[in-house]
Amino acid sequence: MLLVKIGGGKNINIEGVAADLAALGRPAVLVHGANAWRDELAEKLGVEKEVLTSLSGYDSVFSSPEALDVMLMAYAGLRNKRLVECLQRRGLPAAGLTGLDGRLIQGRRNPGIRVRQGGKTLLRRDFSGKPKSVNTGLLRLLLENGYLPVLTAPIVDEDGYAINTENDDVVALLQQTLRAADVISLLEAPGFLADPADPASVIGRLTPGQLRDWETRATGRIKRKLKALVQLLEHHPARVILADGRVDHPLLAALAGQGTVIQ
Amino acid sequence: MLLVKIGGGKNINIEGVAADLAALGRPAVLVHGANAWRDELAEKLGVEKEVLTSLSGYDSVFSSPEALDVMLMAYAGLRNKRLVECLQRRGLPAAGLTGLDGRLIQGRRNPGIRVRQGGKTLLRRDFSGKPKSVNTGLLRLLLENGYLPVLTAPIVDEDGYAINTENDDVVALLQQTLRAADVISLLEAPGFLADPADPASVIGRLTPGQLRDWETRATGRIKRKLKALVQLLEHHPARVILADGRVDHPLLAALAGQGTVIQ
Repeated sequence: MLLVKIGGGKNINIEGVAADLAALGRPAVLVHGANAWRDELAEKLGVEKEVLTSLSGYDSVFSSPEALDVMLMAYAGLRNKRLVECLQRRGLPAAGLTGLDGRLIQGRRNPGIRVRQGGKTLLRRDFSGKPKSVNTGLLRLLLENGYLPVLTAPIVDEDGYAINTENDDVVALLQQTLRAADVISLLEAPGFLADPADPASVIGRLTPGQLRDWETRATGRIKRKLKALVQLLEHHPARVILADGRVDHPLLAALAGQGTVIQ
Repeated sequence: MLLVKIGGGKNINIEGVAADLAALGRPAVLVHGANAWRDELAEKLGVEKEVLTSLSGYDSVFSSPEALDVMLMAYAGLRNKRLVECLQRRGLPAAGLTGLDGRLIQGRRNPGIRVRQGGKTLLRRDFSGKPKSVNTGLLRLLLENGYLPVLTAPIVDEDGYAINTENDDVVALLQQTLRAADVISLLEAPGFLADPADPASVIGRLTPGQLRDWETRATGRIKRKLKALVQLLEHHPARVILADGRVDHPLLAALAGQGTVIQ
């Protein structure tokens, strides 16, 4: 089993990913983002990104109903279906689903953020949350019948609402069920960089212990991503590869050891 | 088995549809449009509708790659997932798929339209076509495991490309596999109107023969819709109900005989 995360940038070579999957012939599950499309669409539609600062000083993007609509269009509509099409054109039996569909990925909605607005403390609750469980019955049904699931946010909350979540957390959760031998995360970078500003600073090999050290020292968005990887490795030994999604054969190159291999 | 077509307008009461499905407890397949959302989005994004006139004088909307992108966002993204969410909130095990996913609805791409442009005759080929076969294995897999499929365009062509199609034709094709006892088409009208300008002119009952007579006399878009209904009834006897989707209980009202019942 191969578990592949495709980052949300526009430069990931999905034709190459499709060709590699066809050549490998291994059962696989794909999880993808679509940040670049979401941001572009939000701008065109005039849906502004609202960032809330909590009382504890932590920033987070507010997932309003309008922001979720844009997300549904970009992730579940445009990117998911164009990716499925790309795979179908190579004869791969791709089927695209969000976590909502058949409650495939169930989560818990965030309780809300306490913010200071107009001199008052308010609790503002958006449509975001953390993935908590997988509908393994549906996932196995698809895999056992030869389908290639292509998954993306949103997921479903306790009450059936669509909620935004981090796809990295979805990948970590899926691995508890799938126990894939290889987990590949395709980036718009040559791997995990010791210095984010220097593409030549790729770290070729990391132990899970070294990954934890990096996670402890990191800040911001990369800390979240590293934390998801630490969690992923906690449950089942796997080879995790952070690899360049922009090359001719993103998956073959990653499996050949290019990028950052965490083992 | 209940086969429900939900029209693409904004006034269909999907909360009522969800409540009715939960109350009925019958296995069902939904097929929906999203014309209103597609048109609105296309306008906001500045994707103009291109209408081609063939040499034989027949008008048709050209499904360019950009038009397909808008369609994916409106149909497969926004409307499909908000509908699935609405059903999930009522505890219904909805799973949203396009015809691309798992090649659920396979079609044949249109060969192109001969047009006169700049003094020359050109063949212009777009991404549209007719549905020809259903992946009954996948549809049965979902139904036998208790899922409620929520289907929409696009479908997949012979080469794996996403193509636009008429959801009415998809419903007619699905009925060959599903053999539903009741086929309900929810409209933004009280039923089939003898005079489209007069909501009071609902025809309460039609025989399949009378339906064919209406189809012969009709023109434009309604002719296409009636033709799809004629084809639907050719393969398997069923009760077809054209009903008002805007009422409190659209499905219960239809099954109680409101609207136009064709039998």
